[in-house]
Amino acid sequence: METIDLLMHHRSIRKFKEQPLTSEQVKTLVTAAQHASTSSYVQSYSIIGVTDPDLKAALREVSGQTYVEHNGHLFVFVVDFNRHHHLGHHFEQPVDDYFGSTESLLVGTVDASLAAQNMAVAAESIGLGICYIGSLRNDMKRVSELLKLPEYTYPLFGMVVGVPDQEGSQKERLPFDVVYHENEYQPFEYRHYEAYDNRVSRYYEERTNGKRNDAWSAQVIQMLNGKPRLDVHDVLQFKGFLKQ
Amino acid sequence: METIDLLMHHRSIRKFKEQPLTSEQVKTLVTAAQHASTSSYVQSYSIIGVTDPDLKAALREVSGQTYVEHNGHLFVFVVDFNRHHHLGHHFEQPVDDYFGSTESLLVGTVDASLAAQNMAVAAESIGLGICYIGSLRNDMKRVSELLKLPEYTYPLFGMVVGVPDQEGSQKERLPFDVVYHENEYQPFEYRHYEAYDNRVSRYYEERTNGKRNDAWSAQVIQMLNGKPRLDVHDVLQFKGFLKQ
Repeated sequence: METIDLLMHHRSIRKFKEQPLTSEQVKTLVTAAQHASTSSYVQSYSIIGVTDPDLKAALREVSGQTYVEHNGHLFVFVVDFNRHHHLGHHFEQPVDDYFGSTESLLVGTVDASLAAQNMAVAAESIGLGICYIGSLRNDMKRVSELLKLPEYTYPLFGMVVGVPDQEGSQKERLPFDVVYHENEYQPFEYRHYEAYDNRVSRYYEERTNGKRNDAWSAQVIQMLNGKPRLDVHDVLQFKGFLKQ
Repeated sequence: METIDLLMHHRSIRKFKEQPLTSEQVKTLVTAAQHASTSSYVQSYSIIGVTDPDLKAALREVSGQTYVEHNGHLFVFVVDFNRHHHLGHHFEQPVDDYFGSTESLLVGTVDASLAAQNMAVAAESIGLGICYIGSLRNDMKRVSELLKLPEYTYPLFGMVVGVPDQEGSQKERLPFDVVYHENEYQPFEYRHYEAYDNRVSRYYEERTNGKRNDAWSAQVIQMLNGKPRLDVHDVLQFKGFLKQ
């Protein structure tokens, strides 16, 4: 049960010691990522390791998070059908029509995410901490330019990894019964969320000495209203996706 | 390094003993899944456990894979913003505009995938085998109807879990150097894929006594040409997504 214990104790780390990962650690993490399942063996992602200080500073600006600059290593997970595009042309059987389908977006996003979560688990299993950086999608165009990402690719998220310099804390997840349904979807009823909302509210109240006490519902409503990232659609189309 | 060993030894299992998971195992796997990172705490997925034999048979028909019917447990991972839709209305701050953004599709797909990969790792760590079922997207409309999935949700993939009744085999992944790039994307050159293609070809030749010897490139080109799943776009729009 050691691995399950590890999974149950995950917490995001946002402050790291100034200790870069070794190249052996990087190789282990990437290789662990690559061993995740991949849709029909398509392997539709690349991973960019960012070590250049100027580049890290520029990506920190996109994200708005200091730990994008200060960490053990910054990985950017890129959905990547560029190699399939080139292979199709190399073998004179172009497959470029496929990339415009919404299905390709799901396949690539799932492939990259499964790989990333394997990396997260691998990192935590050797005592490192991680945090996903979805905020790189604040400006996918800029990230694509900075990392020289070609057509039929897009940056999905980053992941910072390093030696933790904080405990981190774990936020309680939704009750099992509202996430797990048997045989058919169970319609929403607020009474199933009420006690959870109250517990999350108390968690913030205790952690912030009363400065903040938003329930889970309030927090996600505010988040969803504030993060439309409406340019994602145009960037994806510009990169060769979503042509349907 | 026990967990990393486990990750490195992943192989998909497509034949299971007739031994259902216990409800305790199901609870452990779902809880491990829930502990994965989630974008801004949004928790935008549900997991449907399918145990009804008729329902399993119907999903097997969509997928075309016998192991969708015969396994220890069938989970369907559903991207789920329906609860956020209802919470928005409950608190008189509707957030429905957000769901139409392409960003919501990425957030939900990533959230569900990270959870699923945690479940996969948890299952393998206790000696169970797993296989992702992307082929449920052969007919997302039918799957949605079968599982009574409401608006602002979609079935992303399934996962079968159970006691393995086969060894499974591991397909070699792409070379580290074509997947991992440092600081900037390295343009495609076929010579970096050639030796890999040859190794994959030999792997199939040995495994099938010469009946099959397709290289990785040939295999993915054929796959991408054969699996357009062009209805995914319409189903997602029908469910309230991709309105941009």
